[in-house]
This record gives sequence, structure tokens and C-alpha cells, in this order.
Amino acid sequence: MTQPTLYHIPVCPFCQRLDILLTLKGRRDEVDFKVIDITRPRPDWLLARTRGTTALPVLETADGYIIKESLVILQYLEDIYPERPVAQRDPYRRAVENMLARMDGEFFSQGYGWLMNQDAARRDAFREGMLKQYAQLNDFLLAHAPSGPFLFEEFGWAETVFTPFFQRFWFLEYYEDFELPDEPCYARVRQWIDACLAHPAAQQANKEEIVKLYYDYAKGAGNGALLPGRRLSSFSFTPDWRTRPWPPRNKYEHSATDAELGLAAD
Amino acid sequence: MTQPTLYHIPVCPFCQRLDILLTLKGRRDEVDFKVIDITRPRPDWLLARTRGTTALPVLETADGYIIKESLVILQYLEDIYPERPVAQRDPYRRAVENMLARMDGEFFSQGYGWLMNQDAARRDAFREGMLKQYAQLNDFLLAHAPSGPFLFEEFGWAETVFTPFFQRFWFLEYYEDFELPDEPCYARVRQWIDACLAHPAAQQANKEEIVKLYYDYAKGAGNGALLPGRRLSSFSFTPDWRTRPWPPRNKYEHSATDAELGLAAD
Repeated sequence: MTQPTLYHIPVCPFCQRLDILLTLKGRRDEVDFKVIDITRPRPDWLLARTRGTTALPVLETADGYIIKESLVILQYLEDIYPERPVAQRDPYRRAVENMLARMDGEFFSQGYGWLMNQDAARRDAFREGMLKQYAQLNDFLLAHAPSGPFLFEEFGWAETVFTPFFQRFWFLEYYEDFELPDEPCYARVRQWIDACLAHPAAQQANKEEIVKLYYDYAKGAGNGALLPGRRLSSFSFTPDWRTRPWPPRNKYEHSATDAELGLAAD
Repeated sequence: MTQPTLYHIPVCPFCQRLDILLTLKGRRDEVDFKVIDITRPRPDWLLARTRGTTALPVLETADGYIIKESLVILQYLEDIYPERPVAQRDPYRRAVENMLARMDGEFFSQGYGWLMNQDAARRDAFREGMLKQYAQLNDFLLAHAPSGPFLFEEFGWAETVFTPFFQRFWFLEYYEDFELPDEPCYARVRQWIDACLAHPAAQQANKEEIVKLYYDYAKGAGNGALLPGRRLSSFSFTPDWRTRPWPPRNKYEHSATDAELGLAAD
């Protein structure tokens, strides 16, 4: 084996972090990206290598070792490709970006929790919770990088960690009619998000693909699980998402069929 | 200001991590440890410095900057005191210890969740959940360090992260009658725990202190909160824990008074 292999799921935000980091370093071609179909059981050869773990991404190093967890893999790639550093090297600056990066868990949970919610009565509470998350990010950025747009001079570690979520949360715009309000208390985080979304190293996913693939999440079925009455997951590789229509937005009132989603067997 | 200041709570496991790391490096005297009383509201001067955050530990750097989150502070201290490294320097070894360290959140939640549980009917489920956590650690250690006792040659990063929890979980022994079963599926993690508990750099807390201070947690009140009918928290600085009797163990049947806990005002 001559180069590391990354086992990943299409549009998985954790996998995209690694793609962004490698792209920033100009090393995207030095890792072999192998796509795993989330709608089927994990293949036995993969389970054997991961000792049973189904979570992805997983990196197989050039020596055949297995590394799990996107942030752990991110650090490993940063360490083996030290040129064009993405993480800060100064201890205090590194601590600042680590503090920001550690806010990722709650931000992710709030957004995915809302997307998967099936109780219309809880929408307002999810909206409030989501706004609180953005306000916290705004506050952190104002304290540490008031002028922006990024936390430091360039798109770096914190941006690599968060940008995939900013893109995924297009699903909240579509299925939950959520827009970050145009208010001063979100101005700094909005500037950050806009700069992250526009960065050339972070263009692995687009809104149409995310909205179409995450339809089943919006109906409460995560990780490629099948909804009642459906034969194919919205994460299915075929038919290709480009050929499918945009899904219905009214997730609380309607459950789309395979046919409505353009998933009829071809 | 000439040296960093660490604001910490006595017997807080996250604070102890920093103490262990500095002790391993022979730098314990170069950080000013300032004790904060968890049973009183945070002082205004501290809230001003942390911009409202009440969570501890918090490190104030020699330059007056504030760093939060024990793992972020741990990395900062590792970076500013690079001699006698505690973290691995090889990228793959670093990834291995990072994978293990990331298992800390579930381990912590399971143990503290059980301690704070007030429903005797749920004890068996908590016991099962706790055993599963130990089995996962055992599995990880067997895969990466079968001979032991530590993950690598010496007590290092992962041990610094976990040892404070191994000590805190003496409260499960006392209040929940929990012992790790003497079975082969826990043999490797038991070896690890024993070696961690015996290490000279990790002797900041002892069983008696932990059992006495965490009584209120065992009755469902965390973070220095006051239980009904009580005037003092078990985390109170006075009377000193050494002068108090061991608390009653029957947390599901009885609620001890201040007097029973040796907390009568002096």
C-alpha cells in the first residue's frame, strides 16, 4: 500500500472536513477516497478492518492502521502533511481555535435534532435553540476576531470543522423555513458563514444535493434507514440525485413516495 | 503577571487533569492554582474575565488571556512546556491516544448519571451501561496495547484524561455497590486502572475526600446545589471533610441532614 485510504459517505459533513483539509494543503490526490454506500450494510471486509465499528469516516494509513473520528483523523493528516499548516502553531492561537472547534457538538446536535423532529409543536423551541447556537458563535468571534471574516488571517482549522455544518444547515432553510435573522447580534457569525461558504477549498457539497439526500432525515430517518412504505433511501446512489426532482418541503404534513422523490427503480 | 493562573474547584476531575500534566512535567509550581468555592456564586471579577462562563477550570495565561475547557488547556500547557512531553509526538501514536481520549465523554456521563440517579428501579440499567463502557475500554486497550499496563510505555495523555474519573468512580463503589467484575473481559482495563491509580503524579484526590464531597451528587444535586432541608453543601469548604464522618451509603432510602454529614455550622 502506497497511500492512505479514506472510507467515507457522500455528503457526510465529518468526511468533508478531511476533504477540505487535504484540499487546503494541496494533498487531495494523495489520499484514496473510497465511497461507502450508507443505504446498505457495511461490507464484511470493512467491518473486519474497523473491528466492528460502522461509523465513518475511517482512515486506513499507508501502514494499514485504522484511525476513526473525524477530528482525530484531521489532526493526523495535519501532522503527516505539516507543510501549509491549517492549524495554528502558536499555543494560544491553537487554544482559541480549539475552544471554537469544541462548540461543534452542540451546534451539530441542535441542527440535526431540528431537522429530524417530527412534532410541529416543537418547531419554535428548536428555532430558539438554533438561534442561541448562532449567538454563541457570534459572541466568540466578536471576542476573538472582531473584524473577521475568519477566526485568524485565513480559512483554517475552525473553518474546516464548521463549514460542512453551515452547508448541511441549508436543509433547515428548505424544510424548516429557517433563516438567520438580519440582526446585529448575528452579524459577525453571518460574515463568518458567508466567507466559509465562499471558500474555494470547501465546495464539495451544494444545496441541491444536500436538500435531496437529506429528505429522509427530515422525515426522521437517519443514517440511510428506510421509512415505512419506501423501497429506496434518499441517500441511494441510483437514480443520481441530479435526475431527481426537489422534494416536497412540507415535512410535517406529507410523506413523499419513492416516485415523488424520483427514486423509482430504474 | 509572571505566571499562568488556574482557577479550579477542589476534587473537580477536569481540573485534576491539569494538575497531573503539570506534575508529570515537573511544572506544578509554575502555575498559580486558585481555588474557587463551588457552593457560592462565582465572584464578579472571575465572571468578568471569563465573559460570563461559570464552568471551570479556566486558565489565565501569563499574558492575561483566558482559556476554557480542560482538554484545550491541557494541550496549551503541553505546547508551552514542550520538555518532558506527555502527549505522543508520532502522528499515528498521537491518533491512537486521541481516539482513546475521545471515549471520555460517554464514560464520564455514564458514571455521573448513575451516581445522580434517584430511581432505584434504574440501577440495573446503569450497571449494564457502566459495564459496557469498561468493556469498550478493555477492547480498545487489547487492540492497541495488549501487554500494558499503559497505552504506551509510560503514563501519558490518555492516562491523564481518564485517571481522575477512575478515582471519582470510587463513589459508585460506595453509593452503588459497584465493583468491576473479576472477569477476563475486563482484565486489561482493570490492569490499566490499577496502574493509573498507583501513579505518583495522580495522587491529588483520595477515596475518603471524594466519597464525602460527592454525597450531594449521590442525592441528585450537582455543582454545589443545595438539597431540600440542607443549609450546607457537601462541597462546603468548612467544616473540613477530614473532620466529617463517612456519609450514609443508602442513598435510595435516606436523606442525610447537615448534622449527620458533620456539616453543622461551626
